[in-house]
Amino acid sequence: MSGEGEFEFIASRLAPLSEGAPGAAGLKDDGALIDLDPGETLSVTTDTLIEGRHFPEGGDPELAARKALRVNLSDLAAMGARPFGYCLNIAWPGEGVSARPEPFVRGLLAEQQRYGVRLMGGDTTRGPGPWTIAVTAFGRRPAGLSLRRAGARPGDSLIVTGTVGDAVLGLEALQGGDLGLSRGDTAYLVARSLTPEPRLPALAAMRRHARAAIDVSDGLLADARHLATASDLRLDIDLGAVPASAPAQAWMAKQQDEATARLRLAAGGDDYELLLATAEPEALIAELARAGLPAALIGRFEKGAPQVTVRLGETELTPDDWGFTHF
Amino acid sequence: MSGEGEFEFIASRLAPLSEGAPGAAGLKDDGALIDLDPGETLSVTTDTLIEGRHFPEGGDPELAARKALRVNLSDLAAMGARPFGYCLNIAWPGEGVSARPEPFVRGLLAEQQRYGVRLMGGDTTRGPGPWTIAVTAFGRRPAGLSLRRAGARPGDSLIVTGTVGDAVLGLEALQGGDLGLSRGDTAYLVARSLTPEPRLPALAAMRRHARAAIDVSDGLLADARHLATASDLRLDIDLGAVPASAPAQAWMAKQQDEATARLRLAAGGDDYELLLATAEPEALIAELARAGLPAALIGRFEKGAPQVTVRLGETELTPDDWGFTHF
Repeated sequence: MSGEGEFEFIASRLAPLSEGAPGAAGLKDDGALIDLDPGETLSVTTDTLIEGRHFPEGGDPELAARKALRVNLSDLAAMGARPFGYCLNIAWPGEGVSARPEPFVRGLLAEQQRYGVRLMGGDTTRGPGPWTIAVTAFGRRPAGLSLRRAGARPGDSLIVTGTVGDAVLGLEALQGGDLGLSRGDTAYLVARSLTPEPRLPALAAMRRHARAAIDVSDGLLADARHLATASDLRLDIDLGAVPASAPAQAWMAKQQDEATARLRLAAGGDDYELLLATAEPEALIAELARAGLPAALIGRFEKGAPQVTVRLGETELTPDDWGFTHF
Repeated sequence: MSGEGEFEFIASRLAPLSEGAPGAAGLKDDGALIDLDPGETLSVTTDTLIEGRHFPEGGDPELAARKALRVNLSDLAAMGARPFGYCLNIAWPGEGVSARPEPFVRGLLAEQQRYGVRLMGGDTTRGPGPWTIAVTAFGRRPAGLSLRRAGARPGDSLIVTGTVGDAVLGLEALQGGDLGLSRGDTAYLVARSLTPEPRLPALAAMRRHARAAIDVSDGLLADARHLATASDLRLDIDLGAVPASAPAQAWMAKQQDEATARLRLAAGGDDYELLLATAEPEALIAELARAGLPAALIGRFEKGAPQVTVRLGETELTPDDWGFTHF
């Protein structure tokens, strides 16, 4: 592999990932072409992952590839869009492409097959910095769909899919922390951190019943606040209603103070669950369940200054930490 | 500015750049929405620029912004697509956003006004590496357009717009080299290197008369070879016919060997002129001239093994350097 240049890497490794995407032209053109059917709108989202910041330094390139794709597919899910393709910008560190392509490409291929997406374009270069991967993902959604971050209305319920807080515990274990849990529980939490599951099975239910959505990347509290701010509403959340996985519950049982523990899980980030505002919480939860996705009602939007109040049952909490701010 | 976080930076600095782009939702959503009219195809292209590699370390952030946009608009021009928007991924170096936003945003705004594009989405983060800017640009082109890199046919002429070799000389001056030219000539070449001009005025003529196109980023020779390879044809180029600017001609007049000098200009890269394959060279050149773009016939595609033969008049040359390879 030593000395392999950009063009050979693209032709031999990446071009096969574009098979089945006619607009990608085998990655030989300056860009990709995308056609839409009548009544479709294109959704575009993009996220950059940097080694040592968003995935472990010296970690498995296959996992980096998988996470880079999944966090973007999660954004498309939050927009009610079905993914079909992506572009890839890679800045290789000093040694260039030679050390990493095989597991990296294997990871991309696994996710392509899992989620039905194809590589459509991108660029690769080499820089003096860390390995940097930017994915720009494309999805289609119905043209008339009004789902957006600012769509919540007074009286709407806040629903969350899945469980919250697994990823922050998994990250602690990855960084050498001892959670005091069984090996199996720890492995579950680590997997939730490394390979989050974009909640694409929620699409049909969301399109029908949700008015606003966001995926939990910065943390439940931070992303709930994004929803409240965008919709210009107060939002009350009951942390006691936020679902936790069995391993996270086992961890909570070992903590001295439930409120502190629950706040930590809610501020942690990287869950890639969906927060949904809806006027029809029962119908939404039932339809999500039929799609295989458990979900729970955890809060309510009201008229008022755009902020989040956090309770544990009847006790109002004052979070010190509101989650990830990117800087 | 110290301590400004991602959200404040996006809201105060970047969101104004999305005005007039309804699908950008003021940059508050997880992504952007793009609608197409019937008969339109979306073109997408993306390029990453790294400080110290693609623009000068410690240089003017305004120039970095302008170049990052222009190289992508040049790719859209090569696809026959009219740009309308872009997404932006920024990885700030260690000190974060604080040192650079004003000139950077000013540069983006200037280019938006010049080229009629709007910011539609993106992400910003901070990493341990150099300042890294990836732009993903969007354009529209007619759905039936067959223009692509692989479109050349035997007997087609190769046309180049503008002049070739200015950027490599400008880069040499930027890096402290003495070109032996007047201050005015040197400044012209430096400007051609720092702020290349995407050849968007060529769009109408290209759509009508060209079958294949590429923009000259890796160098005339390297990009001509990309065209020949993609189209599976031999390509003969006469370097004596490649237009040079007056400053580049003044530089050539000082070189001992014309062939060596012309090869250097043709291998240099970063010109962002267009190479076009056409069966109607006279009509294409005339229509480009009416659009204000001088252009010249410099070569011809023939049946044969996909390679480029380079002549200076009647003498066949053997280039040592075929241009930029990205690694």
